[in-house]
Amino acid sequence: MASTMGAGANRLDQPTTPITQLVPFLGAGSPVQLLQETLEYAISPKNYLVRRLGEEVFKQRSHLFSLPETLIDRDTYGTGVHKQHFEQHIATLLGKKHGLFFITGIQAQLTTVKIHCDRAGNNRVAWHYRCHLEIAEERAFAEVFHLQRTFIGKSQLQVPTVEDVKAITSLPVDERPAVVLLELPNRELGCKTYPFEDLVQISKLCKAANVKLHLDGARLWEIEPFYQGKSFADIAALFDSVYVSLYKGLGGAVGAMLTSSDEDFMDQAKTWQRRLGGNLVASYPALIDDERGFNLNIGTFYLKWQKMCSVASAIMEATKKYRTKDGKPIVFFEPEVPTCAQIHTHIQGVTVERLTAARNEVEKTHRISVFRSTRPWQALDEMDADWALVKGGENPQDKDAAARKEKSKEDSDNDHHFFEWMIRNENLAIADEVYAKGWEALCQLITAGP
Amino acid sequence: MASTMGAGANRLDQPTTPITQLVPFLGAGSPVQLLQETLEYAISPKNYLVRRLGEEVFKQRSHLFSLPETLIDRDTYGTGVHKQHFEQHIATLLGKKHGLFFITGIQAQLTTVKIHCDRAGNNRVAWHYRCHLEIAEERAFAEVFHLQRTFIGKSQLQVPTVEDVKAITSLPVDERPAVVLLELPNRELGCKTYPFEDLVQISKLCKAANVKLHLDGARLWEIEPFYQGKSFADIAALFDSVYVSLYKGLGGAVGAMLTSSDEDFMDQAKTWQRRLGGNLVASYPALIDDERGFNLNIGTFYLKWQKMCSVASAIMEATKKYRTKDGKPIVFFEPEVPTCAQIHTHIQGVTVERLTAARNEVEKTHRISVFRSTRPWQALDEMDADWALVKGGENPQDKDAAARKEKSKEDSDNDHHFFEWMIRNENLAIADEVYAKGWEALCQLITAGP
Repeated sequence: MASTMGAGANRLDQPTTPITQLVPFLGAGSPVQLLQETLEYAISPKNYLVRRLGEEVFKQRSHLFSLPETLIDRDTYGTGVHKQHFEQHIATLLGKKHGLFFITGIQAQLTTVKIHCDRAGNNRVAWHYRCHLEIAEERAFAEVFHLQRTFIGKSQLQVPTVEDVKAITSLPVDERPAVVLLELPNRELGCKTYPFEDLVQISKLCKAANVKLHLDGARLWEIEPFYQGKSFADIAALFDSVYVSLYKGLGGAVGAMLTSSDEDFMDQAKTWQRRLGGNLVASYPALIDDERGFNLNIGTFYLKWQKMCSVASAIMEATKKYRTKDGKPIVFFEPEVPTCAQIHTHIQGVTVERLTAARNEVEKTHRISVFRSTRPWQALDEMDADWALVKGGENPQDKDAAARKEKSKEDSDNDHHFFEWMIRNENLAIADEVYAKGWEALCQLITAGP
Repeated sequence: MASTMGAGANRLDQPTTPITQLVPFLGAGSPVQLLQETLEYAISPKNYLVRRLGEEVFKQRSHLFSLPETLIDRDTYGTGVHKQHFEQHIATLLGKKHGLFFITGIQAQLTTVKIHCDRAGNNRVAWHYRCHLEIAEERAFAEVFHLQRTFIGKSQLQVPTVEDVKAITSLPVDERPAVVLLELPNRELGCKTYPFEDLVQISKLCKAANVKLHLDGARLWEIEPFYQGKSFADIAALFDSVYVSLYKGLGGAVGAMLTSSDEDFMDQAKTWQRRLGGNLVASYPALIDDERGFNLNIGTFYLKWQKMCSVASAIMEATKKYRTKDGKPIVFFEPEVPTCAQIHTHIQGVTVERLTAARNEVEKTHRISVFRSTRPWQALDEMDADWALVKGGENPQDKDAAARKEKSKEDSDNDHHFFEWMIRNENLAIADEVYAKGWEALCQLITAGP
């Protein structure tokens, strides 16, 4: 279907031609369609996967799959054969002894840092400025657990270095955090990531300093191919605890997995999961769909990364001659070379109104939707100034948060925009030329004069 | 199917006759069957309900149903047309302005008491000894939110009286709680409940004392018929915030609803929901099934209560001549007269081993399973002695908790047992005589001598 849409994009002025979405929706499909997929999978995981992937691909990837050994049973308050089997499968893939399903990553990671802190008798944590716990969880780490956070690194636009972590692990014991959290890749930085050798060094530093190291692996599935020759287990082995997401790249309905080889840690995780209201009477609707998504997408992320590389390259080639008034490229990617299937695409030198009009025009004329929406980009110095407020105090005033929120809305004064996107299964079937064509048409309109 | 099973129970010694389960499982059915129901409902709520209920009953109850006005959409991070419609339906039924779906009741109620406390600038809460927050949530109220709890009432085996609440609301302001939580009905007391007039008085007392009143309505659906002539809204109007469960009696997959007419309170609830890790990227698998369960069961609880009354009466009549060595009835109900579809059934004067053997024998001979499992009952003085430990200190030693847990396991020394059960749709079709027959057979075996 996606390839039909791609081909369709070449026929101009056919209002009935389906629109090719270069940036597909997360969780596209109505609940009826989604539940049909879940049910078909539950009836026979193998038949479902063979239908979706083909016999050949099914065989190639079958060593990666989590396939239930018996009819899927209903879990109750955390227990169940199927639930445990899936948890164990993910844990084993990550080289850990134990896995625990969580309904959200927020809960999984809050639980994790709380336990590491409690066991150390130390309520200090350390993470990057743009960590999910910092910017997207209503400051739960502080509001719920009263943890004190130190930032790692010198700028919120750079992935921390070994030296940055060393500055933390070499703090006096009474200032040192109980746990360092690394997000791998760093989503807010367009999925920039850490060299493997840095991770090895960081892991050693933490161990030597008696600081636990936790992996926010929300996009670990996506970044693993970057670490050529290293397995999920090789990466996870450097961390004491690892969280992975089951939706996002994997496309499950909702949920996350926390893994560790420390049995006592996992027992405590179950207790905190219940305390936070995450021990569900039944998880089967989420669990089954998450296993479906895992099996459908595991083993695809190298392909998706390669596709992102060729797509980004095609778009850059097609748009390189289009420049802002002061000579900067209108379109660029961050990072320049994709680290994985997900990236940030930037557009500068145009107001959001004009950009939106151009996008709509391309969609109408070429039946290509180049993106869905953008967010305003703030220059590095602006952002760091904003964040100094946060960095300085443990509990910034709500008005600062409100101001930042306000700033994150697009308005006419902004002329630099970006959006985050990833290559999904649907995108693999769209030819690079279609991306190039859509983006060139967009740039033409942007630079066409008043 | 249930009626076939009931009839089958009359044929003796037919090992192939299906066993009649007098105590049905919560959430019986495999995930495949459950997902089929969810999907069928999602495709057409009306067609599904007509098939399950019949055209006539569908029409009779249609004023109670939450029926989506358009094709069900996928919710995202708390927003969605279908989600909001269902939330609003439950809120309106309860006479409240706003509703918010939660994935667990634990999270809904923790959020509630936290907000009431924060707004009052007072971290004290008050509830009954056997409140869910007290006994089943790993002390989250204290461990997560550091709330201080006062017990309401003089004994953990009695529903609090107006005087008991008055003792709390008339405390000096600096000892008074921010919120009083009433569980209606009180599950741990076999669903004993408060007279409506008491609720009116309690509500007035709380208002006058500037204490918020929260309703733990996990079984509000079940108890509403008890308050003859009073609607859900009449009951809920006495409370500032109301939590109801969407599984249990309603039979949805998982989830709960928090309702209130206070917009600011609800905004804060969304913030705390996110902080606790309950703001899901998608809730549709739970939401749709919960709406299905709601529509399928709303309007059935008067019938189920009446059935429980006639079943309890039939069992008591059939077993009244069977006595323990010291002349007490072997079987009795708590409360004696059911308040709703749910109750405790007690069995005394027999060890758990002998009781289990008798149950198995009845199942084999009569193809009737009278119960699934029992818990040991502790006499009032024993329990109150145990609980004095909890009542005395804010943070009882773990060994006390461990000791209580140990005590809750069945062992050979116990000769008093009980179990909680409810009339579900499957039970309505089983004749009272089948219950009577099963229980009489059980008592015969228990008293038959070594």
